[in-house]
Amino acid sequence: MKNKFAERTHLVKPSETREILKITERPEIISFAGGLPAPELFPVEALKVACNAVLNEEGEASLQYSTTEGYIPLREAICQRMKVIGINSTIENVLITSGSQQAIDLTGRLFINEGDTIICESPTYLAAINVFKSYNAKFVEVAMDDEGMVMEELEKKLLEHPNTKFIYTIPDFQNPTGRTLKLERRKRMIELANQYDVLIVEDNPYGAIRFAGEALPPVKHFDTESRVIYISTFSKIFTPGLRLGWICPGERFIDKYVSFKQTADLHTDSFAQRITAKYLELYNIEEHINKIKAVYKERCTAMLSCINEFFPKNINYSMPEGGLFIWIELPESVDSGKLFARCLENNVAFVPGVPFFPNGTKKSTLRLNYSNMPKEKIIEGIKRMGEVLYREIEKETTLIGYSKKMN
Amino acid sequence: MKNKFAERTHLVKPSETREILKITERPEIISFAGGLPAPELFPVEALKVACNAVLNEEGEASLQYSTTEGYIPLREAICQRMKVIGINSTIENVLITSGSQQAIDLTGRLFINEGDTIICESPTYLAAINVFKSYNAKFVEVAMDDEGMVMEELEKKLLEHPNTKFIYTIPDFQNPTGRTLKLERRKRMIELANQYDVLIVEDNPYGAIRFAGEALPPVKHFDTESRVIYISTFSKIFTPGLRLGWICPGERFIDKYVSFKQTADLHTDSFAQRITAKYLELYNIEEHINKIKAVYKERCTAMLSCINEFFPKNINYSMPEGGLFIWIELPESVDSGKLFARCLENNVAFVPGVPFFPNGTKKSTLRLNYSNMPKEKIIEGIKRMGEVLYREIEKETTLIGYSKKMN
Repeated sequence: MKNKFAERTHLVKPSETREILKITERPEIISFAGGLPAPELFPVEALKVACNAVLNEEGEASLQYSTTEGYIPLREAICQRMKVIGINSTIENVLITSGSQQAIDLTGRLFINEGDTIICESPTYLAAINVFKSYNAKFVEVAMDDEGMVMEELEKKLLEHPNTKFIYTIPDFQNPTGRTLKLERRKRMIELANQYDVLIVEDNPYGAIRFAGEALPPVKHFDTESRVIYISTFSKIFTPGLRLGWICPGERFIDKYVSFKQTADLHTDSFAQRITAKYLELYNIEEHINKIKAVYKERCTAMLSCINEFFPKNINYSMPEGGLFIWIELPESVDSGKLFARCLENNVAFVPGVPFFPNGTKKSTLRLNYSNMPKEKIIEGIKRMGEVLYREIEKETTLIGYSKKMN
Repeated sequence: MKNKFAERTHLVKPSETREILKITERPEIISFAGGLPAPELFPVEALKVACNAVLNEEGEASLQYSTTEGYIPLREAICQRMKVIGINSTIENVLITSGSQQAIDLTGRLFINEGDTIICESPTYLAAINVFKSYNAKFVEVAMDDEGMVMEELEKKLLEHPNTKFIYTIPDFQNPTGRTLKLERRKRMIELANQYDVLIVEDNPYGAIRFAGEALPPVKHFDTESRVIYISTFSKIFTPGLRLGWICPGERFIDKYVSFKQTADLHTDSFAQRITAKYLELYNIEEHINKIKAVYKERCTAMLSCINEFFPKNINYSMPEGGLFIWIELPESVDSGKLFARCLENNVAFVPGVPFFPNGTKKSTLRLNYSNMPKEKIIEGIKRMGEVLYREIEKETTLIGYSKKMN
């Protein structure tokens, strides 16, 4: 048989990170690798009530084919939630997607021609990299500091790359860095998008999980020309397993999103949509989110204080005010891939930083997740990592000294 | 703002059929338009039991992120079901998709380069047409008779179109015609695929809903070179709202399917997968399918006998042994689009045949669905259609007679 695959299939490689995550599922391992919410916080009992109510009251409709756009009461609840954070939208401009991943994928399909440039934070969400690459996009990375993407750098890149289609940004508690784009930069990003005639794709799965500092309006709040395509999800505030995300692209783009969503999977699970809408009707999700915030705050604080105590002093780490992740920058001589192997021998795991950089390799970086492990395991895991780190950094430094002498 | 859409967006038009289906949702209308299963047969009570069991026994896992491939017990149950009909597969070669629509979409992504030829039955499933067109495929239609795609025609097209990537076929109770590919042709299709080195995409959502005649093995059963990509779904035998389909492409292709599924939506709803697996564990789905068959048989029989009684004699209609649809061929002078408008005035609806032909227009055809209306409404609806048909056919015939005289 001759090769049958389409050319685009070369653009998608099996995810190494997926393999890493499989390894780290072994029960003896303390894993900071995945990006999983804390399952013990899932509202299981409330969902039981919601399931029974939906099946009693609207059983047939909840199991039948439904509209591509999504269940109207759920879209209404989403509009209400968005209004509170400063986004005014009607339900006509909200499309329910099968997780925010599908919203990202549809965005790639709708906007990326071969060779288009996507500007993103450096580093950025690896599954977005994989999707946009599958549409043959080129990535231009913009440096970040502790206050998010650096706007001077962004403008430079916009000037250099006139074929930029959109800026992809995760403004709140970014994946993988945990950093947040500060207020002035949000406004400036809009100005630059207007000036250089590019779109902004605002991926905002974590914004509601702020456990410190002051809430900032989403980038879309400052949108003056309907350039911001806003993507969010119930995965971090409710449950990821139900695969419920949404996209609010503005009226210029919504129809095409609906058409392509229809070709992709007709519509998102009707039952999942209705039990989520029922949950939102019967319960106060803000109370539930507050519980999540309290737990993640405790875990994040524990992790930060252990990093401070047990890691060598010549590393940098981010200090998130929300979300799920901490970003670590090691001395440049340390390869976090090798470190990963050493840590695994000590039954502790993380994700090496390389796959979060679309173009290159910052081998000396890594991502830690704190949402999915209890405090005791965080303390023990960071201790173990610290021991390996001291050993590896010392070794690397010695080797470098040696190699310098050799030259 | 300059136009931002990717070029491929021109390939997807808003679906006219969707607009038709919206109109036909009005409660006063007897609709044979949609392709909906009978909702009164959905196992609502059993699903309540399954939901509660899953949330009690595995609540956290059922709401968490899960693997792209799908829930193992569900894939095991699928392998068992496929074995019964003559497909031997391990779970490693089964991928759970968000409805069979996603399996079709992923197939387009994996295999279609711009300009590739897809050979299909004429007419064929309109959402598959839309998906494959979105990847810039060219369609070559093969004529059908009452025993499915005509193999001599297929061979002719394979000879004429050496850049054919795959044959897309719905062998059982085809959508829209309700016709079934007879046994010898299934074997012949495999021979031709081997000879001309093309793949076969077997879309088989209806095969389990056979209420008359003898069951035939799927095309994949005869596959000698792993060329058949088999797609099926729980939508017609269980519920469509949960969006659970699967693909069994064989080991040569499965890894790429998994990689692209991951970029598309990470994985299919974990909860939907687990409640379906739980249902399959606790209940006998064959008994449930037998109920569906009995009801659809009654409705199909009622519709056929009413067509025979109330429609003009110069129309052709298919006689399905299963599935959801009957296909009508009117005298060539009758435009079923115009007929649709007339029927709507009489509060009865169907889908005009044009969108089921990827290249052209057979305006004198239409599709009737019988699964979604009770017997009394079928009788009343077909009566109403018959009245309009008599009127329109008479008018058209008169006009043609007149126009002939004029020439």
